[in-house]
Amino acid sequence: MKILLSNDDGIFAKGIETLAMVLIERGHDVYVVAPDEDASGTGHGLTINKPLRYRKYNINGNFFGYMVNGKPADCVKLARWEIYRDVDFDFMISGINRGANLGVDLFYSGTFGAASEAALLGVRSIALSLSEPFDHGKNYLTAAVFAADFIEKIKDFQFPRYKLLNINVPNVKTEELKGYKFTIQGDRNYKENFDKRFDPNGHEYFWITGNAVEYSSNYHSDYYVLKDNYVSITPVALDLTDEKFGLQIEKELNK
Amino acid sequence: MKILLSNDDGIFAKGIETLAMVLIERGHDVYVVAPDEDASGTGHGLTINKPLRYRKYNINGNFFGYMVNGKPADCVKLARWEIYRDVDFDFMISGINRGANLGVDLFYSGTFGAASEAALLGVRSIALSLSEPFDHGKNYLTAAVFAADFIEKIKDFQFPRYKLLNINVPNVKTEELKGYKFTIQGDRNYKENFDKRFDPNGHEYFWITGNAVEYSSNYHSDYYVLKDNYVSITPVALDLTDEKFGLQIEKELNK
Repeated sequence: MKILLSNDDGIFAKGIETLAMVLIERGHDVYVVAPDEDASGTGHGLTINKPLRYRKYNINGNFFGYMVNGKPADCVKLARWEIYRDVDFDFMISGINRGANLGVDLFYSGTFGAASEAALLGVRSIALSLSEPFDHGKNYLTAAVFAADFIEKIKDFQFPRYKLLNINVPNVKTEELKGYKFTIQGDRNYKENFDKRFDPNGHEYFWITGNAVEYSSNYHSDYYVLKDNYVSITPVALDLTDEKFGLQIEKELNK
Repeated sequence: MKILLSNDDGIFAKGIETLAMVLIERGHDVYVVAPDEDASGTGHGLTINKPLRYRKYNINGNFFGYMVNGKPADCVKLARWEIYRDVDFDFMISGINRGANLGVDLFYSGTFGAASEAALLGVRSIALSLSEPFDHGKNYLTAAVFAADFIEKIKDFQFPRYKLLNINVPNVKTEELKGYKFTIQGDRNYKENFDKRFDPNGHEYFWITGNAVEYSSNYHSDYYVLKDNYVSITPVALDLTDEKFGLQIEKELNK
């Protein structure tokens, strides 16, 4: 199959390299277009106020990809309309992200943003993340093998318009995985997330940090099954309309 | 009421100034925290790889605001957790955006991103945009007056968790408005959106452009009612889960 890869950790990240290697080893044609630096947290943003460039990059002598001076969603648009405009991709996989993308992370994650962009362009897409790889032992291979098996199983199923999957894999060896579960986007959000510091001139500056709070402990939630060593598969629709809420507001206006 | 304002066009934009002036004139307490430069297209992205700073800025001698070296969603987080941490906002309005935010724009728009962030933080929020203000005659006042009247009417209604409104106002005088309609997020997307150029050294670079295509001509759509000189009010839920799609994929996996 023809598979487009991108991510938000940048083209130098181990996650995208591991994923590409496994997919190539399985005999797929792999196309890599990824940011030239870490673009974590850039969501579905685009670069519209500065020009974009791309160049070819040889990844550890094994294969090559294109690196872009932009965000993950820019990479997908460039791949689709410029670099690989004649390629009809079977799948787009974004990742493997360094760290889980759960709950409200979907709005901030550049990895999810790239997968969303692919879905908007009509390509079957998956955002793929590995949980907690900040400690020793990053099991990117577990996520890569899961994804390679997964797309094989669903290769004959066309996704409905503007739908995609958000997959999170626990940071364990393949044999320690309990399986997979379909989940909802959980209510996991962040509180008080600034670290205030002072530069050598005495001026204050702020780092965004992340103190995650899990508001509803629902056993169908992405974060809940992940902690229990299952792969979490969240089916996603890029349709934000909420008609019920509209009716409530309309009623209020007509009071 | 206590109203937080932000936008993606930057603190110098006429849209946010007009909105602030009208709300102050109505007797509200207005709090402005906005990007120090144009951040259009940055979506719901955050700034996590560089430090944020903010400083006070006097807007035309009329009132002041805080300008942030970040994205719209950064501004909302800084307002909530740092600058105005003790203020309990009644509403957050993001805008008035220079140009409509319709269809898939909701994923790219920093104006919508700021309103989404406010919703995630539990503040009643509205993304507010003015259609086609690129010609002569920008009717920001029409949008500002509509919003001021609107929040007055719904001031006793608490929004459900993670819900917000996306409001687009046609670029006409108030007396030319036909009224408002509740709408769905339409299927309006972009095609072939790169402008390829060469720099003086002969190297290519690309600008993202926007050739909008309206895929479904649905009279409930945001863009449809806007063209007909109605204000479009799209009720939005920040919940991406699509259970039906999940069941389809699950069935395919079990084949």
